[in-house]
Amino acid sequence: MNTFGNIFRLTTFGESHGPAIGGIIDGFPAGIDIDLDLIRSEMNRRRPGTSLLTTQRNEQDEVELLSGVFDGKSTGCPIGFIIKNTDAHSSDYNELKEVFRPSHADFTYQMKYGIRDHRGGGRSSARETACRVVGGAFAKMLIKAKGIHVAARISQVGSTILSGTDDEQFQQYAKIVDEVRQKHDSIGGIISCTITGCPIGLGEPVFGKLSASLASAMLSINAAKGFDYGGGFDGVGLKGSEQNDPFVCENGKIHPHTNNSGGIQGGISNGEDIYFRVAFKPIATIAQPQQTVNNNGDAVTLVAKGRHDPCVLQRALPVVESMAAMVIADHLLMKQTNSII
Amino acid sequence: MNTFGNIFRLTTFGESHGPAIGGIIDGFPAGIDIDLDLIRSEMNRRRPGTSLLTTQRNEQDEVELLSGVFDGKSTGCPIGFIIKNTDAHSSDYNELKEVFRPSHADFTYQMKYGIRDHRGGGRSSARETACRVVGGAFAKMLIKAKGIHVAARISQVGSTILSGTDDEQFQQYAKIVDEVRQKHDSIGGIISCTITGCPIGLGEPVFGKLSASLASAMLSINAAKGFDYGGGFDGVGLKGSEQNDPFVCENGKIHPHTNNSGGIQGGISNGEDIYFRVAFKPIATIAQPQQTVNNNGDAVTLVAKGRHDPCVLQRALPVVESMAAMVIADHLLMKQTNSII
Amino acid sequence: MNTFGNIFRLTTFGESHGPAIGGIIDGFPAGIDIDLDLIRSEMNRRRPGTSLLTTQRNEQDEVELLSGVFDGKSTGCPIGFIIKNTDAHSSDYNELKEVFRPSHADFTYQMKYGIRDHRGGGRSSARETACRVVGGAFAKMLIKAKGIHVAARISQVGSTILSGTDDEQFQQYAKIVDEVRQKHDSIGGIISCTITGCPIGLGEPVFGKLSASLASAMLSINAAKGFDYGGGFDGVGLKGSEQNDPFVCENGKIHPHTNNSGGIQGGISNGEDIYFRVAFKPIATIAQPQQTVNNNGDAVTLVAKGRHDPCVLQRALPVVESMAAMVIADHLLMKQTNSII
Amino acid sequence: MNTFGNIFRLTTFGESHGPAIGGIIDGFPAGIDIDLDLIRSEMNRRRPGTSLLTTQRNEQDEVELLSGVFDGKSTGCPIGFIIKNTDAHSSDYNELKEVFRPSHADFTYQMKYGIRDHRGGGRSSARETACRVVGGAFAKMLIKAKGIHVAARISQVGSTILSGTDDEQFQQYAKIVDEVRQKHDSIGGIISCTITGCPIGLGEPVFGKLSASLASAMLSINAAKGFDYGGGFDGVGLKGSEQNDPFVCENGKIHPHTNNSGGIQGGISNGEDIYFRVAFKPIATIAQPQQTVNNNGDAVTLVAKGRHDPCVLQRALPVVESMAAMVIADHLLMKQTNSII
Repeated sequence: MNTFGNIFRLTTFGESHGPAIGGIIDGFPAGIDIDLDLIRSEMNRRRPGTSLLTTQRNEQDEVELLSGVFDGKSTGCPIGFIIKNTDAHSSDYNELKEVFRPSHADFTYQMKYGIRDHRGGGRSSARETACRVVGGAFAKMLIKAKGIHVAARISQVGSTILSGTDDEQFQQYAKIVDEVRQKHDSIGGIISCTITGCPIGLGEPVFGKLSASLASAMLSINAAKGFDYGGGFDGVGLKGSEQNDPFVCENGKIHPHTNNSGGIQGGISNGEDIYFRVAFKPIATIAQPQQTVNNNGDAVTLVAKGRHDPCVLQRALPVVESMAAMVIADHLLMKQTNSII
Repeated sequence: MNTFGNIFRLTTFGESHGPAIGGIIDGFPAGIDIDLDLIRSEMNRRRPGTSLLTTQRNEQDEVELLSGVFDGKSTGCPIGFIIKNTDAHSSDYNELKEVFRPSHADFTYQMKYGIRDHRGGGRSSARETACRVVGGAFAKMLIKAKGIHVAARISQVGSTILSGTDDEQFQQYAKIVDEVRQKHDSIGGIISCTITGCPIGLGEPVFGKLSASLASAMLSINAAKGFDYGGGFDGVGLKGSEQNDPFVCENGKIHPHTNNSGGIQGGISNGEDIYFRVAFKPIATIAQPQQTVNNNGDAVTLVAKGRHDPCVLQRALPVVESMAAMVIADHLLMKQTNSII
Repeated sequence: MNTFGNIFRLTTFGESHGPAIGGIIDGFPAGIDIDLDLIRSEMNRRRPGTSLLTTQRNEQDEVELLSGVFDGKSTGCPIGFIIKNTDAHSSDYNELKEVFRPSHADFTYQMKYGIRDHRGGGRSSARETACRVVGGAFAKMLIKAKGIHVAARISQVGSTILSGTDDEQFQQYAKIVDEVRQKHDSIGGIISCTITGCPIGLGEPVFGKLSASLASAMLSINAAKGFDYGGGFDGVGLKGSEQNDPFVCENGKIHPHTNNSGGIQGGISNGEDIYFRVAFKPIATIAQPQQTVNNNGDAVTLVAKGRHDPCVLQRALPVVESMAAMVIADHLLMKQTNSII
Repeated sequence: MNTFGNIFRLTTFGESHGPAIGGIIDGFPAGIDIDLDLIRSEMNRRRPGTSLLTTQRNEQDEVELLSGVFDGKSTGCPIGFIIKNTDAHSSDYNELKEVFRPSHADFTYQMKYGIRDHRGGGRSSARETACRVVGGAFAKMLIKAKGIHVAARISQVGSTILSGTDDEQFQQYAKIVDEVRQKHDSIGGIISCTITGCPIGLGEPVFGKLSASLASAMLSINAAKGFDYGGGFDGVGLKGSEQNDPFVCENGKIHPHTNNSGGIQGGISNGEDIYFRVAFKPIATIAQPQQTVNNNGDAVTLVAKGRHDPCVLQRALPVVESMAAMVIADHLLMKQTNSII
């Protein structure tokens, strides 16, 4: 269950404070130019320690590719990679060894497995998403070859819907998050993502709908609480006559005139932009005292040490894009099996 | 891609107007009493033709079990079943043979496969969900043995949030849908679902999170546009200090004191009620003329014949429950592999 | 585990004496002409009751296609089918309800599941292979479009290696089996199979080797006890210098000059004929008294009623071919994902 | 396709001359003591350079565990590991860049992917099996907890069936292989393997038979050409009356009196010893000139450099055991889902 995808498959391993995290990308087609700069820049987007708005843990997150690439191209063989954990301060977590932090996975892991690596959240740490970004970078190389582009943006932080230019939106975001940080609290929000250039026909009925794959991908991200696409939750107030997308034919090309469907009809992409939203809860770790219990059920007051983000959204952008890119890459390859070639 | 689940697996087939639809349930444990009445009553909940609020197609939806049951118990062998299509009026659809109905899957199926069974939507018809309800009935038998219960309700229709007693809510719902029907239109809404009695420890990190499985399950349902759980989309406005669920120990049992997490933490059930919502768009077929195009791109005016629901919500209730029950059944069995027994 | 294949997937259900057996073929590409005559003729090759050499059970084995075909072509949607059990004499098996027949699956099913359908062997009956032949017929339609052909023959019956013309071989076979039948015994043998026209590049390293898929396919057939390909077991006596296949270039085409590899190198087809063998044990049911025990451990003398083959080989030919054809179809489709198209 | 297993799953990556090979073990149950000595000793059994009978490549094959283990126990999280390639002499292979070595995978990889890492055979090198041995060591820890043991031995080298004490057999083996080595040739043989202590009930009908899983596992090993179990290929000469295993009841325990079935009936383990054989062809690389062609089809004379085994059997023993142990571990866990617990 640490594998994602059907044909393009990412399998990951690793805990926050182990020697390394890593993964294996299987099913990556042969002959694709490997863009090391893209991997690096994507990792930097997710990397902690780049501003006061994110955790101060300082990981270089250098990705070591161990296989599957030869002479700068993919060989069709699995791509193994590792990312060393170089700035893990495990001692920060000693006091947490027997404490169940509120709304973290400490309790559920302990109860499920009877054992857990408590350091930094172990396997349940968002550090794991670094491997998704590696997988996503490879997926982006693949889908770019078909003219497909994935772009995520923060559309809401807390209750505030962001608007204006990119720069204005970032200023709004930074201001809100900084206020929260100073109050030793955390805040959630919504990421909106658009996939452009997606060909018609991705998605496999009935359980492998493109929308179902995207939903699964997004809800597998730490702190994600919701997913919708097209009209989504807000669109339920419209009537059928208002929401339907009539088809037109322009320049010999049939396509829907409006796009309330969000680019997916019957679970299959229809050639229009695919757009969806992901809701993220506020991060569970906050820099203020919280009441909880330890393994024995004794009440304890928790004061977080460690280094944590007051808001996950900025660093989640490349994660959302990565998961979306992997879904599209996987469905692109599956589509190639829809007929004999 | 017509298979759902990992261990408890449902594979389905069938088109709206073919001779029959059906499926195979694999991985169903041996020795469970088969409750034929439950199958029948669940099918009746989904069955069309039971009131003016739903389509007038009159299917008996009798489920024929063909294997996997012996002396009233499951044998561990796959359970094959079929449901005959007895009231298919295919001629109603002759005119649609070459028309792309707005917001239906006609266009995407045609483009993906180069061929489609146009009668009644073929494979993309919601008729397919009858097979999910059969799978769900079996899943319910399984999870009931562990004290788990799944219950869905309509919580919003159009923009109206339902409230009051069950009966009052149904009256509100019926009134709104009837108005829409008389206007030859359709309407969407939200279904809320709660899973009670779920043990701690269901869900497989990191890509097999219980939340990810539920999201995939729900977004695979026809007309579903969104999924959230716990605080969901509305909870993004809260601060971490407001949303976190502190643990307490009562009567020797550790559990979260509040349940903003919606019963799932780190992708794993924590023993509290699991609650989630599913957004459904208004049904695409409406009883008023719509502009669209045919296969050749010629503009045509579409007047729906066939028999259709003005609102999908009532009949979607058992479908939502069925998908949820199958997710829980599957994860229950997977959990049994977490340690050697 | 009642599913075979990765992209081209057959899922089956059904017991020997239930109302019907059947299956679902998923991943079958769209737009392929469905050859109903082929299905029928393949079923007839496997069908019991066609000569004294096979069981006298008389099943018409009419395949009812329920979905996935429209206007004579595949639609890309799953193909559901059932085959009714019309000549099941369940009462023949009443005495076997609590008896563990030697070398049958009665004991292992009972111990594994705690319950079993004893009638005619239930799920473990070779009747199940009828569904494989349906899957195989569809696979043959698919691979035929790429010029691939699968042909199996009986190469050894008991200790006798068959030789001469086809007709002479059949005479040898018939004579030996008839002798065995008159002695109320059963006999095994070897089926050899050749796949011609297979393109280069089928097989996915390292665990999805074409040879591994074929081995799994063959050992999943009832009574199969061994598989080898190329030099196989007999080839282990040769030296590397004797067995290696040097490459040559003829008419601009590079290919191995000899074919000791059996058409597969490094788990991947090399364009030469693929040939392999499958060993089948003698059928466990024999028409003479056998000592064994019942559920309680009491010694009983078993005298088989029912209707059974003295030799499985003749009817196993289409089953071997079907499994091979499904393996090739599956790998053909997987190969289509090796590069972006 | 670089993943093996359903619940206990090994995914591997790596080429012979890349920086490292490695893998991820997923589905390993929590709470099992990790025996690092076992991993080391198993690796040493497979490790090259330990005698003149094996390749002179000198790899320490130190396994670095990167995750999934905490306080000496498994955590239920995926176990990532790498093994560095420290003694790769890639320059030995420069001349082979464009040569298709006879009976190697150079040709098929080149044709399948259009690109290949030619150094040391790249992904197709038997070096990959080191990762299987890591997976196998973990599987052995798991099955040992249930009292199951796997042991393989060389039973035939070339045409010589080994006999006598273990030491005598090794002397026979060493003598034959040394002669072959001096003749600059290579030789194959047969490995026999026995699984003792296996509980009743492993194996999932109908396509997931234990025999089918073992066959797939064995045929996925480099140079393997055949698999049989129980009577196997040699048993086809027996009559049913000779080969059937009658059940008896001794000390209140029902079991088959003989074991011609090889411990598996109807694809399910019956509690007796499971025994099977694997045929290995002679290694393709031989230290004498061979004729072949290069990428352009030009005839070339190949003289192997590199360092190679004259016989694969000795080093294949832990690989065969590892694959068998993983099959058993996987089926043990699957069996835990056969009923609700």
